[in-house]
Amino acid sequence: MPRFALIGAGFIGGVHATNLAAHPDVDFALVHDSDVERAKAVAAKHLCPATADLAEAFDPAVVDAVLVASSTDAHADHLRAAAAAGLPVLCEKPVDLDLARAVDVVGYVQDCGVTAMVDFNRRFDRDYAELRRLVVSGEVGDVHLIQMTTRGPTLPPLSYVAVSGGQMRDQTVHFFDLVRWISGLDPEAVFATGSTLVEPRLSEYGDVDVSAVTLRLPGGALVQIDSVRQIGYGYDERIEVLGSTGMVEARRHRSGAVMRYGAGYVAGDGMHAGWFERVAPSYRAALDHFVDALEHGTPVGPDLGAALKAQAVAEAATRSLASGEMEDVQYPELAYRM
Amino acid sequence: MPRFALIGAGFIGGVHATNLAAHPDVDFALVHDSDVERAKAVAAKHLCPATADLAEAFDPAVVDAVLVASSTDAHADHLRAAAAAGLPVLCEKPVDLDLARAVDVVGYVQDCGVTAMVDFNRRFDRDYAELRRLVVSGEVGDVHLIQMTTRGPTLPPLSYVAVSGGQMRDQTVHFFDLVRWISGLDPEAVFATGSTLVEPRLSEYGDVDVSAVTLRLPGGALVQIDSVRQIGYGYDERIEVLGSTGMVEARRHRSGAVMRYGAGYVAGDGMHAGWFERVAPSYRAALDHFVDALEHGTPVGPDLGAALKAQAVAEAATRSLASGEMEDVQYPELAYRM
Amino acid sequence: MPRFALIGAGFIGGVHATNLAAHPDVDFALVHDSDVERAKAVAAKHLCPATADLAEAFDPAVVDAVLVASSTDAHADHLRAAAAAGLPVLCEKPVDLDLARAVDVVGYVQDCGVTAMVDFNRRFDRDYAELRRLVVSGEVGDVHLIQMTTRGPTLPPLSYVAVSGGQMRDQTVHFFDLVRWISGLDPEAVFATGSTLVEPRLSEYGDVDVSAVTLRLPGGALVQIDSVRQIGYGYDERIEVLGSTGMVEARRHRSGAVMRYGAGYVAGDGMHAGWFERVAPSYRAALDHFVDALEHGTPVGPDLGAALKAQAVAEAATRSLASGEMEDVQYPELAYRM
Amino acid sequence: MPRFALIGAGFIGGVHATNLAAHPDVDFALVHDSDVERAKAVAAKHLCPATADLAEAFDPAVVDAVLVASSTDAHADHLRAAAAAGLPVLCEKPVDLDLARAVDVVGYVQDCGVTAMVDFNRRFDRDYAELRRLVVSGEVGDVHLIQMTTRGPTLPPLSYVAVSGGQMRDQTVHFFDLVRWISGLDPEAVFATGSTLVEPRLSEYGDVDVSAVTLRLPGGALVQIDSVRQIGYGYDERIEVLGSTGMVEARRHRSGAVMRYGAGYVAGDGMHAGWFERVAPSYRAALDHFVDALEHGTPVGPDLGAALKAQAVAEAATRSLASGEMEDVQYPELAYRM
Repeated sequence: MPRFALIGAGFIGGVHATNLAAHPDVDFALVHDSDVERAKAVAAKHLCPATADLAEAFDPAVVDAVLVASSTDAHADHLRAAAAAGLPVLCEKPVDLDLARAVDVVGYVQDCGVTAMVDFNRRFDRDYAELRRLVVSGEVGDVHLIQMTTRGPTLPPLSYVAVSGGQMRDQTVHFFDLVRWISGLDPEAVFATGSTLVEPRLSEYGDVDVSAVTLRLPGGALVQIDSVRQIGYGYDERIEVLGSTGMVEARRHRSGAVMRYGAGYVAGDGMHAGWFERVAPSYRAALDHFVDALEHGTPVGPDLGAALKAQAVAEAATRSLASGEMEDVQYPELAYRM
Repeated sequence: MPRFALIGAGFIGGVHATNLAAHPDVDFALVHDSDVERAKAVAAKHLCPATADLAEAFDPAVVDAVLVASSTDAHADHLRAAAAAGLPVLCEKPVDLDLARAVDVVGYVQDCGVTAMVDFNRRFDRDYAELRRLVVSGEVGDVHLIQMTTRGPTLPPLSYVAVSGGQMRDQTVHFFDLVRWISGLDPEAVFATGSTLVEPRLSEYGDVDVSAVTLRLPGGALVQIDSVRQIGYGYDERIEVLGSTGMVEARRHRSGAVMRYGAGYVAGDGMHAGWFERVAPSYRAALDHFVDALEHGTPVGPDLGAALKAQAVAEAATRSLASGEMEDVQYPELAYRM
Repeated sequence: MPRFALIGAGFIGGVHATNLAAHPDVDFALVHDSDVERAKAVAAKHLCPATADLAEAFDPAVVDAVLVASSTDAHADHLRAAAAAGLPVLCEKPVDLDLARAVDVVGYVQDCGVTAMVDFNRRFDRDYAELRRLVVSGEVGDVHLIQMTTRGPTLPPLSYVAVSGGQMRDQTVHFFDLVRWISGLDPEAVFATGSTLVEPRLSEYGDVDVSAVTLRLPGGALVQIDSVRQIGYGYDERIEVLGSTGMVEARRHRSGAVMRYGAGYVAGDGMHAGWFERVAPSYRAALDHFVDALEHGTPVGPDLGAALKAQAVAEAATRSLASGEMEDVQYPELAYRM
Repeated sequence: MPRFALIGAGFIGGVHATNLAAHPDVDFALVHDSDVERAKAVAAKHLCPATADLAEAFDPAVVDAVLVASSTDAHADHLRAAAAAGLPVLCEKPVDLDLARAVDVVGYVQDCGVTAMVDFNRRFDRDYAELRRLVVSGEVGDVHLIQMTTRGPTLPPLSYVAVSGGQMRDQTVHFFDLVRWISGLDPEAVFATGSTLVEPRLSEYGDVDVSAVTLRLPGGALVQIDSVRQIGYGYDERIEVLGSTGMVEARRHRSGAVMRYGAGYVAGDGMHAGWFERVAPSYRAALDHFVDALEHGTPVGPDLGAALKAQAVAEAATRSLASGEMEDVQYPELAYRM
C-alpha cells in the first residue's frame, strides 16, 4: 500500500485527509502544513503522524506519493519538490496562477518523468462521467452546443476572492476543463462578459461575480457557460450537450427526494446547501483513480497538460472580460508535449 | 354530418354542448332538458335550437344520433327511447344505478341493434391510452400488479353523494373499467374497506369518502385502488402497471411547468384545481371516437356491456365494504353476449 | 361581436382561421389571400366567405378588425391599409424586415391612432406569463441572469430561411421580446456568434443555424440565449431567470406524462414533435387578449413599439454575428413614443 | 470509545463491519461467526481480531456493546446472552420468527435493563425521516391514507425464502414498522392477499411473491402496501402519506441524474440495481443513532417492543393471506410495557 504524505491541512486538506484515511489501499503516512497546529489537528483525527519538517513529506524513505493541498501560491514549489524526489503527485488546481510559472514547473515535472495529476475532481463526478461516456459513444451525434451552469450559494470571503485570480481562473476553469474532456476539442476562441451584481468591491480587483462565457470549438460548435458566485437557492451545477441527433443532460442535484403537495403547488427538497455536499464523492473517486493508476502503472486522468490548457482558456476569458471582444485562446507550447 | 340531439343541459351537458358545437363533423341540432330554461341557455350559447318536447330529440327526421347527459335516473329511459327510434346513442355512465334494471335496458338496446356507447371518458385520456398501448404491446411482460389513485379536490354536495350509489359506483367505477380495459381481464374477486374521514354524515348512507380496494384478476395478478373524495391539493389521478419485465406509469398531471428555486426547496405548479381541467380533453376525444365510428361503421369503444361489467365490480366492492370480506364478482349473463 | 377579416391563408393563416372560427366573441367575416384558391379552401372549412378583393378586407362596412397573416413582405402594406381605414389590427411579426421601413409604417399607424398589436404569441404562453408574474412580484429579487433556449426540430425550407432575415430576426427575436417583457429592461448591448452546423448553404446568406447570444441589460444583468434551427429530439424551449434571492424556470414541455421503467433506465414521453404542438394555445390566448382589448378599450399587450424594439435587438445581434464584437443596440426613436 | 463485538460475518455482517470500522467513535474490537473462516476474512479486512469463542463476544472485559447480525434463528440466544452480560445490543430483525419466543426473550432483555435496539434501518433513511418529520409537524393535517411500495429486483434464493417466515414477516415487516412510526398509530386490522407469479414453488411454503396489504388504523385511516419479490427494473421503494390538507411523498430513487433526449422520448438513469445501493446509508445512520444513544444515555429508536409490534402485524397479515379475510392484529401484552 503506497504511503501518502498530505501537504496542507486547511478545509480541502481535511477533505483529502478523510479520504486518505478511509481508503483501503492507502497508508496515510504523514500530514504537513506550514501551520503546525493545523497539521496536528488533522493528523490526530486520523491517528496519523504530523510533521513540521516539509522535507520529510518528500522523503522517499517515508512516503511513496504526495497529495498537494497547500495554498495556491505554494503548489508550484511542492510539485517541483515531489518531482525532484521522484514521487508521484496529486495536486489541487491550479498549478500556479501565473501561467508562465505554471508552464515552467510542468516542464520540470515532465522532465523528471513522475506521474502527476491535477485534481479536477468534476471529471470524477458520476453524472459528468456518464454524460461524457454517452457523448463519446455517439449518443447525440456530432456535438453542436454545450450549455453549462456553475453557481455557488455564497460569495467566498473577499480576501479569498482577491487572490483567486478572478472568476474565470478560479470557478469557471473547472468547466473549461470539462468542455475539453467531454468534447475532445480545444476551444479556439472565447468571449466573456461579467458584472459585479453581488459584491461591488470585486470591481476593484477587476473581477466579476456574474458572468457569461461563449466558447467556439474547432469545427464551429459553441459553448455557453454561466458562472455566478452567489445565488439564493443553494449550490447549482448542470450541463447539457446538444448534438446533431439528440441531447444529454446532467441535471441539477437536490438534497433529497421528498415532495410536498399542497393547494396550488408541489414542493420538494431543494438544492444542496453548499458545493461540498454536491461534489464530495468526486474527491474520493479522483483519489481512487490516482491510487489505481499508481498500482497498475496506467495513465492518470487530468494530467498537468490538461491543467495548463484549461488555464489557457481562463486566461483568454479573463482578457475578454476586459476587452469586450472575442479572444483567441493561446495554448502554451509545452502542453502539446503531453 | 350527423345531426345530434343533446339531452341534458346541466354541467356535463354544457361540456358536451361545447364539444358538439366545436366538432367539425357534427351538426349540433337540438338541446333538450327537463328544465326548459336550462336547455335554452345552453342552446343560445351555441346558436342551436332548444326543445321542450322530448320526443323531438328522438325523432329520426330531426336527429341522427343522441347524446344522453340527463340525470342518472333518466339514462335508462333515454337509452331505451333512442334504441326504439333506431338512433345511435352516446350515454353518460351509469346505464342505471340498479344493476338489474341496467341489464334489462342493455338487453333491449342490443336487441334493437343500434350503436350504443357509454362515456367512460378516461379510456380516451391520452396518457391512459398510451399506457394501455404499452401494456398490450408487451412492454412490461405479464401484468403482475396495478396501482391506481383517484382523488377529488372537494366532496361533492351531500345531496349528490346521497343519490350517487356510493363511492364505488360513482367514483371508483371509472377505474374498474380501466382495469378491464388495460389488463384485458375481468376481475374475479374484490375486497374493499373504507372510512368517512371527511364527511361523517356519509355513513348514514352507508357510504365512505376514503377507501382502499383490492382486486384479484384471473391468473393471480392484483390491483390496488385508493379512492378519496376530498384532498387538499387539487385533483389527482395516477396509474402504475407492474409486469414481469418492467413497469409503466401514467403520472400525476400538474397545471403548468414553472418551477421556483429557493433556499432549501424547489416548488412547482401544483395539481389541477378540479377534475374537469384534468380530463376535459378526454370528453372531446370520446366524442371524436363515437362520431368516427358512426361515419365508418366501426365498433365503439366502451360499449354497454363494458358499462355493465364495471358496474358489476362496483356492486361486489360495495358488498365488500359492508361485509369486510373479499367478495366474488358476479357478472350479469347478458354482458357475455357483447 | 366584432367582424374579423383574415388576410393570409397559409399555414399560420389557417391557425388563425381556426381560432377566429372557434372564438365565441368573434364574427369570422372574411378571408383574403393573394392566392384565391388558398383563401377559398380555408374559408370553406369554416363556413365563412372568401374574397379576392383585398379592399373588401379593409372596408369598415364589412369588417371591424383585421388579422394580418400575409407573407412577411406584405405586412407593412396591410398594416398601413388597416390603419388608413381606422381598423384595429393584429399583425404577425415582423412589421417589416427592413427596420427603417418598419419604423415608417409604425409611425403612420400611431398617427392614425388605431389599436395595433404584434402577435408575439409567446407572451401568452401560460408558463412564460407565470414566470413573468413571479419575477415582477419579486420572487427572485433583482434579476441577475436569464438563460433561454429556443430549438426547432427541423430546418425550415431553405427558400424560407433565405428570405427570413436570418436566425436573429426570425427565430431569436421572440426571445428578445421576452427578455424585455420579463425583465422590464431594454438590452444595451449584444454579442452573437454562430455556425452553420446543419446546413452549410446558409452561410451563402450570411445566416447561421446554431448560435449563442449574450445580452447586457441596464444595471449589468446578463442574458444568454441559444438558438438552434434543427435538433434531433423534437421542439424545445426553456427559460430560467436567476435573481438575487432565487431562481424561476419555465421547463421544457413534454408530449405526455407516461413513464416506462426498465432495467437501468426510466424513459418517458419526449418533447413535442413540432413547434406548433408546443405553442398552439398561445395563439388562442393572444387572440383572446386582442378581442378583449377591443371590447373594453384596454391597451394591447405587445404593441408595435415592442415589435420595433425586439427588432432593434435582432439588428444589433445580426451585426455582431458578422463583426465578432459586442454591439450596442440602437433603438429607433419612434419606439419611445409608445 | 465503546468497544463493539460483531456477531455474524455474512453479507449483512460485512456491511456492519465496514460501518463499525469507519465509525470515528467506535472501537471495532471483535468479530465472531459460527463459521470461523468467515469471521477471519471480515476481521482481516478491517485489521480487527476474530474469535472462535462466542463467550468472548459477550465478555464485558473485552467489549462494551454487541451488534447481532447472526442467522435469524440465533438472534434470540444472542440477545439473551448480551442482556445477561449487561451489554447494550443492536440486533438485526427479527427478534425471532416465532412470536411467542420473541416475546419471551424481549421480556428477559427488558428485565435485565440493557439498552436494546432492533435494526429497522429504514427509519434512518434520510427521506423517510424527513417524511415523518413533515407528517408529525402537521404538514398534511390528519393522516387519511398511506400508500407504500416495496419491490425487490430479484427473488432471493429459494433456500432463503423457505426459512424467511414468508413475505409478510421478511419483507413487508419493514413497512409495518414504518406505518407505526410515521402515523404514531398501531394498526387494528389487516387484509392481505397474494399470488405466486414469479416462483410457483413458493406456494409449497404457503408463501407469495406479489401481495397487496390493506391496514386499518385507529380512527379509520387506511394503508395500502404492495410488496413484490422480483421486478424487472431494479430496486423500488416509495411512500405517500395523504392527509386532510395535503400529501407528502418519498419518491423512488434513481441511480443518477443523467437524461437522454431523443426522437419521441426522454430517458434517464434507472433505479438502483439492488436494495443495498438504495439503503446503504441508512445502516450507517442507524449505527450512529445507537452509538450516540450509548454515549448520551438517550433512548434508542426502534426498541424491541417496536420489533414485536411490527411482527404482530406481520402475523395477522400472514393469517389473512390464508383466510382471505380481514384479521384483527393481536399485540403481545409485553409490548405495552415498553
